[in-house]
Amino acid sequence: MKYCLITLFTLLCCSSAFAQRSNMMVRLSEIEIDSKHLEEYKAILKEESRASVQLEPGVVSIYPMYQKDAPTQVRILEIYASREAYELHLKTPHFQTYKTTTLKMVKSLKLMDMEAIDPETMSKMFLKLQKN
Amino acid sequence: MKYCLITLFTLLCCSSAFAQRSNMMVRLSEIEIDSKHLEEYKAILKEESRASVQLEPGVVSIYPMYQKDAPTQVRILEIYASREAYELHLKTPHFQTYKTTTLKMVKSLKLMDMEAIDPETMSKMFLKLQKN
Repeated sequence: MKYCLITLFTLLCCSSAFAQRSNMMVRLSEIEIDSKHLEEYKAILKEESRASVQLEPGVVSIYPMYQKDAPTQVRILEIYASREAYELHLKTPHFQTYKTTTLKMVKSLKLMDMEAIDPETMSKMFLKLQKN
Repeated sequence: MKYCLITLFTLLCCSSAFAQRSNMMVRLSEIEIDSKHLEEYKAILKEESRASVQLEPGVVSIYPMYQKDAPTQVRILEIYASREAYELHLKTPHFQTYKTTTLKMVKSLKLMDMEAIDPETMSKMFLKLQKN
């Protein structure tokens, strides 16, 4: 009986973790920046993404990068625990500061809602990063 | 003296981890798939990315996703520990199988080498993943 309860508990925990993961919101943002403002933009984005990951429990990742052969082409992989977490993120002071200060620097912006092909890979990625 | 050695050791470890991270190769692949083969392609890609993360120490992440409003538009965020790890990856049986079996399914392919704007965010983002 004791082992049955332990198994049941483990199954419940696993299915809860899976459900949480399947609610995740994944977004890929494609942004073109005015080259005059590129360094300033990257500094502001770095601050904003750090603050979001550190302060917001629902922000799983804001991973900003730029294209090596076209540095004004910025891409951001954003992962939120849920749509609600994303809505909360939009209201934070650090996001609002980012949005208003970078508005004039952005030449184009495309927000793409994505579906992860294998959400479970994420946990494996984490284990690998600890070793690297 | 003992504490000096411990501090020195810690500093050496940290700088080594930083050097490893700064050698990382980040790639964003933009792939358009023939809609006739979409489900088959996603299944093969899922297998290939799982095998790569599980079997190759130098593959930090292969994170595949597709655009919700245009499911034939696939994007893959790939992170390798180094350029050498990437070269080794290209020679593995699972990558070779993926490449040959999906060749006819791919309508277009754009490989973009990326620079992370804040490589340190990675560790934070994966700590968050454990909690989610």
